[in-house]
Amino acid sequence: MGAYSVGVDLGGTNLRVAAVDSEGVILQRVSLPAVYDCGPERVVEDIVSVIDSIRKPMGTAGMRGVGIGLPGFIDTEAGVVMGAANLPGFQDFPIRDEIQQHLGTPIILENDANAAALGELWMGAGRDVKDLMLITLGTGIGGGIVIDGKVLHGFRGMAGEIGHMTVYPDGNPCGCGNCGCLEKHASATAIAAMGRMLLLGRDVTAARVHQLAKEGNEHAKLIFESMGKALGIAIANLINVFNFPLYLISGGPLPAWDFFAPTMFYEIGKRSFSYRHSSARIEKALLGSDAGLFGAAYLPFQRGIYKEAAASSSAGSF
Amino acid sequence: MGAYSVGVDLGGTNLRVAAVDSEGVILQRVSLPAVYDCGPERVVEDIVSVIDSIRKPMGTAGMRGVGIGLPGFIDTEAGVVMGAANLPGFQDFPIRDEIQQHLGTPIILENDANAAALGELWMGAGRDVKDLMLITLGTGIGGGIVIDGKVLHGFRGMAGEIGHMTVYPDGNPCGCGNCGCLEKHASATAIAAMGRMLLLGRDVTAARVHQLAKEGNEHAKLIFESMGKALGIAIANLINVFNFPLYLISGGPLPAWDFFAPTMFYEIGKRSFSYRHSSARIEKALLGSDAGLFGAAYLPFQRGIYKEAAASSSAGSF
Repeated sequence: MGAYSVGVDLGGTNLRVAAVDSEGVILQRVSLPAVYDCGPERVVEDIVSVIDSIRKPMGTAGMRGVGIGLPGFIDTEAGVVMGAANLPGFQDFPIRDEIQQHLGTPIILENDANAAALGELWMGAGRDVKDLMLITLGTGIGGGIVIDGKVLHGFRGMAGEIGHMTVYPDGNPCGCGNCGCLEKHASATAIAAMGRMLLLGRDVTAARVHQLAKEGNEHAKLIFESMGKALGIAIANLINVFNFPLYLISGGPLPAWDFFAPTMFYEIGKRSFSYRHSSARIEKALLGSDAGLFGAAYLPFQRGIYKEAAASSSAGSF
Repeated sequence: MGAYSVGVDLGGTNLRVAAVDSEGVILQRVSLPAVYDCGPERVVEDIVSVIDSIRKPMGTAGMRGVGIGLPGFIDTEAGVVMGAANLPGFQDFPIRDEIQQHLGTPIILENDANAAALGELWMGAGRDVKDLMLITLGTGIGGGIVIDGKVLHGFRGMAGEIGHMTVYPDGNPCGCGNCGCLEKHASATAIAAMGRMLLLGRDVTAARVHQLAKEGNEHAKLIFESMGKALGIAIANLINVFNFPLYLISGGPLPAWDFFAPTMFYEIGKRSFSYRHSSARIEKALLGSDAGLFGAAYLPFQRGIYKEAAASSSAGSF
């Protein structure tokens, strides 16, 4: 058995685990409901038993470690999640050490949006670059930033919060205290909210708005134009600041690309001269909901690369 | 004579040169007018002869190289300036190789705003951090981003163009083709333009608006509140994206801090929950117009550090 690592994607609903080899081939995968009602210990128990069942037949010799992608801000040094609003009971819970103790293998935590960005870099739409940003449209809007192959964390693990970039200073109020946050104008939730405002139905979803747009409904089309404009303003800002070669978009509303992308590209072209004068690409992400799983699995391999480099560097002092 | 490097700050008006030791002490400095009327060759000649006159008494043994900060986008590999609107005649001129050939010492080019950010990190307000952003308020607004001690260039040398971040999607038109760019609402030029709109005088400058604010003029105070609001929206966006420990502000309007900072901090607090939940600092830069000179002088030392690390690393393979 060659080298492999285990990626874990711990979401609000599901716990997904995959064993992946160093070439990015998925060797095994398991998915089960994430159970938060019985405290974090139960979640740890589930993660440990799934990984145990995976590595038993594969052997421990080739195992390089476990990467875990999860929502919230990660305190990398302490191995805990801060502000874990979507992981009930996990605030300040020593999740890394608990799992590490049970499995006896290195555990690396990463924010789920960051893990997804890393996954796209490793095995998705970003395989030809070293710098990219992934923008994930969902209930909110998440962002993951990779510079020179490594995730940008910021000094408190809070980098990449592009969902709360102000696109309209007097725009829709956001739960964060701001007005006009990107995610209040361009997330799946915002699309559905605009659908309700335009009387497309009381229980309308982003997918339903997309369906209506395909059927030629002018209000539905307008909603995606509005969403594309907000997204374009934000991406133009990001291009002006980062000058990356690649910006990827992912998430539920991605299939509606043809309805929002034209306005998005118009705004980007207007608002970013560095976009007009460079060959930056704005594209669809490729891995969908597997991006985070790939990114999590990549973490132990990535750490291995740096460790080997450090070892060879320090060997020079003998 | 110990190790020293030479920093060059090539601006639209002045050519400033300083010899600096590895502790950041300025050993010698020279300033002369930058002459662009006779072509780039004349500028190169001036730079070469100043550096020659500086290093003759100091000797060449300790000299680690020359860093040059200059306006425009730098193509680091080719050693040329792209889009050199403020350096007449320099578009595609091989400035690095020309100077290197005459001096026989390594030359490193850097964008002036980036060099200033690096200077603040090395010898200014950022000595205690490894990540920071410097925002320079002038005719336009420039930005320099330093991550883990190194300048973020982007893939075409265009990173850090925060002056063209959209703060008001329907705001003042900008020469770049956008509306509502930060620099159209918060630069020294914007302050003066607002002064003219509010009839504070036909030839009013940002400094004059500041003087009037100090004298209690309500319109002048309003101008700085408006400018502080735009700046606060932009900085909140940057904090949400980068989560850096430090953001520095520099440039002509800095003395008016007490008039624009309160609105700026109000907007940042409202628009960035990661600001409210972290200990990020927004402060005045310390080095003024010397920041770029220090940053330029630091470049050869910085490259030296990486070269030594690489050498010790490759030595490990013997």
